[in-house]
Amino acid sequence: MKARETARATLENLYRIFTIPEAPDSTLGGIDQAISNDVAGFLQTHIVALERSLEEIEADFASSIIPEKPTYVSEYTEFVKEKLVAQSVHTAAPGFIGHMTSALPYFMLPLSRLMTALNQNLVKVETSKAFTPLERQVLAMLHRLVYQGDDTFYTQWIHDSQHALGAFCSGGTIANVTALWVARNRLCAPSGSFRGIAQEGLARSLKHLDCEGLAVLVSQRGHYSLGKAADLLGLGRDNLVKVNTDSSNRIDLKHLKDTCCRLRDENIRPLALVGIAGTTETGNVDPLEEMANFALELGCHFHVDAAWGGPTLFSESNRHLLKGIERADSVTLDAHKQLYVPMGAGMVVFKDPTASSAIEHHAAYILRHGSKDLGSHTLEGSRPGKALLVHAGLSIIGRKGYELLIDLGIERAKTFAEMIRQHQDFELTSTPELNILTYRYCPKDVQHKLSLATEKQSEQINLLLDQVNQLLQKDQREAGKTFVSRTRLLFSHNKQERTVLRVVLANPLTTDEILDSVLAEQCTIVLQQDLQALLQQVEIHCDEIDEAPALGCTKVRCS
Amino acid sequence: MKARETARATLENLYRIFTIPEAPDSTLGGIDQAISNDVAGFLQTHIVALERSLEEIEADFASSIIPEKPTYVSEYTEFVKEKLVAQSVHTAAPGFIGHMTSALPYFMLPLSRLMTALNQNLVKVETSKAFTPLERQVLAMLHRLVYQGDDTFYTQWIHDSQHALGAFCSGGTIANVTALWVARNRLCAPSGSFRGIAQEGLARSLKHLDCEGLAVLVSQRGHYSLGKAADLLGLGRDNLVKVNTDSSNRIDLKHLKDTCCRLRDENIRPLALVGIAGTTETGNVDPLEEMANFALELGCHFHVDAAWGGPTLFSESNRHLLKGIERADSVTLDAHKQLYVPMGAGMVVFKDPTASSAIEHHAAYILRHGSKDLGSHTLEGSRPGKALLVHAGLSIIGRKGYELLIDLGIERAKTFAEMIRQHQDFELTSTPELNILTYRYCPKDVQHKLSLATEKQSEQINLLLDQVNQLLQKDQREAGKTFVSRTRLLFSHNKQERTVLRVVLANPLTTDEILDSVLAEQCTIVLQQDLQALLQQVEIHCDEIDEAPALGCTKVRCS
Repeated sequence: MKARETARATLENLYRIFTIPEAPDSTLGGIDQAISNDVAGFLQTHIVALERSLEEIEADFASSIIPEKPTYVSEYTEFVKEKLVAQSVHTAAPGFIGHMTSALPYFMLPLSRLMTALNQNLVKVETSKAFTPLERQVLAMLHRLVYQGDDTFYTQWIHDSQHALGAFCSGGTIANVTALWVARNRLCAPSGSFRGIAQEGLARSLKHLDCEGLAVLVSQRGHYSLGKAADLLGLGRDNLVKVNTDSSNRIDLKHLKDTCCRLRDENIRPLALVGIAGTTETGNVDPLEEMANFALELGCHFHVDAAWGGPTLFSESNRHLLKGIERADSVTLDAHKQLYVPMGAGMVVFKDPTASSAIEHHAAYILRHGSKDLGSHTLEGSRPGKALLVHAGLSIIGRKGYELLIDLGIERAKTFAEMIRQHQDFELTSTPELNILTYRYCPKDVQHKLSLATEKQSEQINLLLDQVNQLLQKDQREAGKTFVSRTRLLFSHNKQERTVLRVVLANPLTTDEILDSVLAEQCTIVLQQDLQALLQQVEIHCDEIDEAPALGCTKVRCS
Repeated sequence: MKARETARATLENLYRIFTIPEAPDSTLGGIDQAISNDVAGFLQTHIVALERSLEEIEADFASSIIPEKPTYVSEYTEFVKEKLVAQSVHTAAPGFIGHMTSALPYFMLPLSRLMTALNQNLVKVETSKAFTPLERQVLAMLHRLVYQGDDTFYTQWIHDSQHALGAFCSGGTIANVTALWVARNRLCAPSGSFRGIAQEGLARSLKHLDCEGLAVLVSQRGHYSLGKAADLLGLGRDNLVKVNTDSSNRIDLKHLKDTCCRLRDENIRPLALVGIAGTTETGNVDPLEEMANFALELGCHFHVDAAWGGPTLFSESNRHLLKGIERADSVTLDAHKQLYVPMGAGMVVFKDPTASSAIEHHAAYILRHGSKDLGSHTLEGSRPGKALLVHAGLSIIGRKGYELLIDLGIERAKTFAEMIRQHQDFELTSTPELNILTYRYCPKDVQHKLSLATEKQSEQINLLLDQVNQLLQKDQREAGKTFVSRTRLLFSHNKQERTVLRVVLANPLTTDEILDSVLAEQCTIVLQQDLQALLQQVEIHCDEIDEAPALGCTKVRCS
């Protein structure tokens, strides 16, 4: 009797969580309201700035046992507040300029809730209805932003059930993989008795094409997702050919051509040439026009990874930086970056609306031939209605609004670069082209000494500076007030790989004063004992360097 | 002067959308509040039941031009309400029993908003901090649900920086792809001078293994994502070998063995055997134990696609149905299915914690060696903190809560099967093992006649019944009150492929009365002229069938 009553009580509780909303005065209801009223204030109050080590945090997430009995929502919410939110990262903070996540426009929050409440599944029309034409429209809008087709073109293709102008993805990685998947399957398309790579596989395709392998060419600044794609698609990472960059972090066209000659000699066929419109680390843009010409010459797919820089096309004064992108066969764009949409929204668009037929697939219960189900041309299956948030951004912010955001970021990067140039203790390591730059801590006198150093001396000093900058970045992150990221860059002028600090300026709430405070904080951090010890070693090495005669000094000043 | 003022005004408006929340009495604020107060009521009120054709809806999403100027949030919200929400699908409705999306527990909504507001990026610790251990914990919990390791095991592996117990994905497709990617790379691991498939690619791997191809074996009921995986990974769809099923929609072990003999003769090596724990169309479970034995014999990877049925493991009385799953090398689970998490959350777990090293990758600016960044073992790059919602479900609902949900669904499927068996106009086409079943409209006298028909007569009648059921499903969907889906199933007893109606019973708010009304509505729909015309043709064909002697009748009754 007791057991049956318990079971009924549990069942009732279960129905409650599906039917009764959190009361506004409950713990979770309160958090919800606080976020609705003032998300910035909520994040500021609840994310604790003080760093706890990851190992300490892990202790709160140590159990691998699924709780046997239900937990009260209020109790769980307290846990989330104290153990998770408090120890998360304030990605929206205007002083956190080291990553590609910005503050979000306010309307994204209620619209995200609407999206969650509707819980549509975009894989098929049966569970998405109007969301399907909406997503197709978003893809068409971004297609048009890139390719600038005319009304006739879009009227024909936008809602064409057999084709898709692109694919909505969970992020840029899936978008890049999808682009190269399409490229691979088009190169290895059915022909004569060969039924195509989708059917017969890669090994038979190489036999059919009579070559030893298929290569993807990209500069050394290419995103790491391309390596994953080369692995996943069976090409092998050896065939992701990394081409040297010039001093502006752009692909070296001479080296690209030499590399292609080598590939030809090895009977490896170029599958795709990948241009980067906004390298992740330095924000530079490859010479897309020249690359388009060269891809044409090679007869290979031309993909542009514009996950970061794509929205630069909104800006009338800056879109020329991406000239040539309209000649790409496919372009990746990330909405969760410079379209200011919450995490988890990428896209790839295809110049040729029939391109994605190369990866088309069907099933008996959905994605039937002739249906408008979007899932027949995507790598992913079930997907949420994130397209709503992109649609909202494009509609509410508009072309001009995004233009302003883009221009602001590029302007601010120039300002910050100038601040770094003017500062005696920092050295700019990449000039911003878009809104990303790199620099490092390197006092002016050390910069001067480095210009006179032998290769060996320079290497010794730079190794120490690498440590200084690594510690500096780590300490700043742990202090939790501001944040820059760091990376390793191979410099073309001396072939040295160096640790640099990296800054991304896409948060419109970041001010010049904040940028100033980031540098000021770094100057304070280097006063710490461990960093001073390293800098003293740098000094000792510097002392060993002979001051060059007057001529040498002039040379330095001129360089 | 005017231009500068306009620019300043635009800039101020831009700052507003990043800093000023929607007022509670605004259009969007009102929707937000309505969803918070009563999501079921909101969906009921705002989703219009009346069907508009997709072509009509497309007219509202026809422009490919990104609006030049900003739109007021209120104006945009009106558009969303009238054109999008009204024409979306009420996936949470308890009468919509044709898809795998259920009503959501209420707490998922405010927690989703919290997740969106925090906007963490799980690819790296720098943008996720506590979310990283949280996700690792969730993966460990599901790993333990499947593999039941002991405390020592999980203490060692849960937060190990070099390894991952699984991968969090945007859905089951990426999970299945990841599993087969790992399987492929492990089979083609570095050995001697061969540097492995990740480096050298598939063609060289086949040479190294001295075989003609790599095959993935799965029953005919395998999910279509496996076909995508075979294509993507370069294996070719020819090498996704579909094995016959028995009358219970389970893989036919005899045919599996015969198929493997054929593959051996063709020098094609089995890469992976895939068992299904809950087929998408019929909810049946493959004989996992026997498959594990056979995979061992073959020396190949054993993957179980438990995207649907995985959570059956929560149920003490039903987990035996999945016996053998604990011997799988990898298991796919979808949280947005029977863990009741919003769309976009899948997972794959690996028995061997070192397995995913086969797809490990690094980059200079993140995912450095030794970091705990989760992105080094995932197919995707940037990812949202969806693990919070899985964690919340597991904590708040608990093992016992999920058990109740699972048991309820399986019970209800049995009830509905009985209702169909009892109904004179319907025929059960697959007996539910979990909470999915299929049936079709087929009046009792037709069923009787079919049992006496020649192959040709049966084919003629069934072709007509296919049309009846197709129209029936379409009309019911368009009426918008209730919804079942449809698929085509190949029946083992007569090798005929037939159209059937498909029902998924995972929404705890679905009652027996609703199930009754689904059948009642279908009986009304068949009274429509077009359906009656088809049924008259069926009757004509039936009239041509000779009534068998008494013996035949008995036989039918016994069968």
